[in-house]
Amino acid sequence: MNFNPTGNSSSPIAPVARLMAELHKLPGIGPKNAQRLTYHLVSVSNEEALALAKAIQFMKEQTILCSECMNITDRDPCSICSDQGRDKSCICVVEEPLDVLALEHSRAYHGLYHVLHGAISPGNGIGPDELRIRELLVRLEVSEKSYLIGHKIQEIVLATNPNLEGEATAMYLHRILSPWDIRVTHLARGLTTGGELQYTDETTLVRSFQGRQEF
Amino acid sequence: MNFNPTGNSSSPIAPVARLMAELHKLPGIGPKNAQRLTYHLVSVSNEEALALAKAIQFMKEQTILCSECMNITDRDPCSICSDQGRDKSCICVVEEPLDVLALEHSRAYHGLYHVLHGAISPGNGIGPDELRIRELLVRLEVSEKSYLIGHKIQEIVLATNPNLEGEATAMYLHRILSPWDIRVTHLARGLTTGGELQYTDETTLVRSFQGRQEF
Repeated sequence: MNFNPTGNSSSPIAPVARLMAELHKLPGIGPKNAQRLTYHLVSVSNEEALALAKAIQFMKEQTILCSECMNITDRDPCSICSDQGRDKSCICVVEEPLDVLALEHSRAYHGLYHVLHGAISPGNGIGPDELRIRELLVRLEVSEKSYLIGHKIQEIVLATNPNLEGEATAMYLHRILSPWDIRVTHLARGLTTGGELQYTDETTLVRSFQGRQEF
Repeated sequence: MNFNPTGNSSSPIAPVARLMAELHKLPGIGPKNAQRLTYHLVSVSNEEALALAKAIQFMKEQTILCSECMNITDRDPCSICSDQGRDKSCICVVEEPLDVLALEHSRAYHGLYHVLHGAISPGNGIGPDELRIRELLVRLEVSEKSYLIGHKIQEIVLATNPNLEGEATAMYLHRILSPWDIRVTHLARGLTTGGELQYTDETTLVRSFQGRQEF
């Protein structure tokens, strides 16, 4: 096997170059960073380096998508969907699994979730069909036919990101959910705790005025 | 198997948490970054994620240290040590394999190398015995006995990093190499190309005066 076909000693040997290329594919890992991480893995013990390889393998073997909420899970339905203590009349729609973690961490919400796995972004070729929207509609249809008290979905909270793609996704969902007899809400926009008025962008200021509340 | 022993939905499931922990061990990868990388690997295809795992495994299986220069290689001796076109009378001592790549890239040097795999750093518990110094002395002993013209080592260039640890390592090597009838040099210190005089540190300015040269 010819591992260094260029015969150029200023390029790394093939097993090193291959690992560098794979690390460089990760988001936010530039070529210099990939090189540094590679040589770190070269220098640590076999055991330590293979622990990372095995963790990747284990994660891919053990994680699936919850057939109800589409969040990543190791059992179906996931721990949130199967939790009898949660409010099953409300679904919070988020873009990514990490958003579920953040909302759970805040303890602000005790209903169910639905993970879209992205946001509408025509520039990146992501339309509604690339997201888990069909699965959300199936959940609404099933709930419609349910006779179990408290299991009928009454509210959908759109909690997509407050950016262009997230807003576009929320608008789209709001439109396709309008035929349903369901309350559709979105998270409040306003000043962030700890922020400063003078550094707050205009759109946020406008929205915090529009949404002002009585003491 | 209980993958989520806390039963807390704000902590990630076990296979995800394990991968996060492994990625967090890498240098420069903080907890937030480890989380982001993990969820990236969750979202990509099995094939794509396992390519990284396999690249780590392949690198660990295929790379060894060259028995002569201690650089990482996939064959022993490495392509540099076995290159008949290189000047075998000179050894450039560097801290890490990445330093060899950088020097090879510059095409400034055509002799052999010796990789120490670190620098003396008492604060981190790294003394001379933790470095590949013994192996360097063995090379000198072998060369001493060699009758092959041009294979006798005549110069050692100390190319450790120009920082505290690198300087300490160079000083130490200079001392233990003094009994040998070998020229011991170090790389020049001075202004960096493209730099500005007013932003150059004092030590570098002093050294660039000391090392000033005729046109």
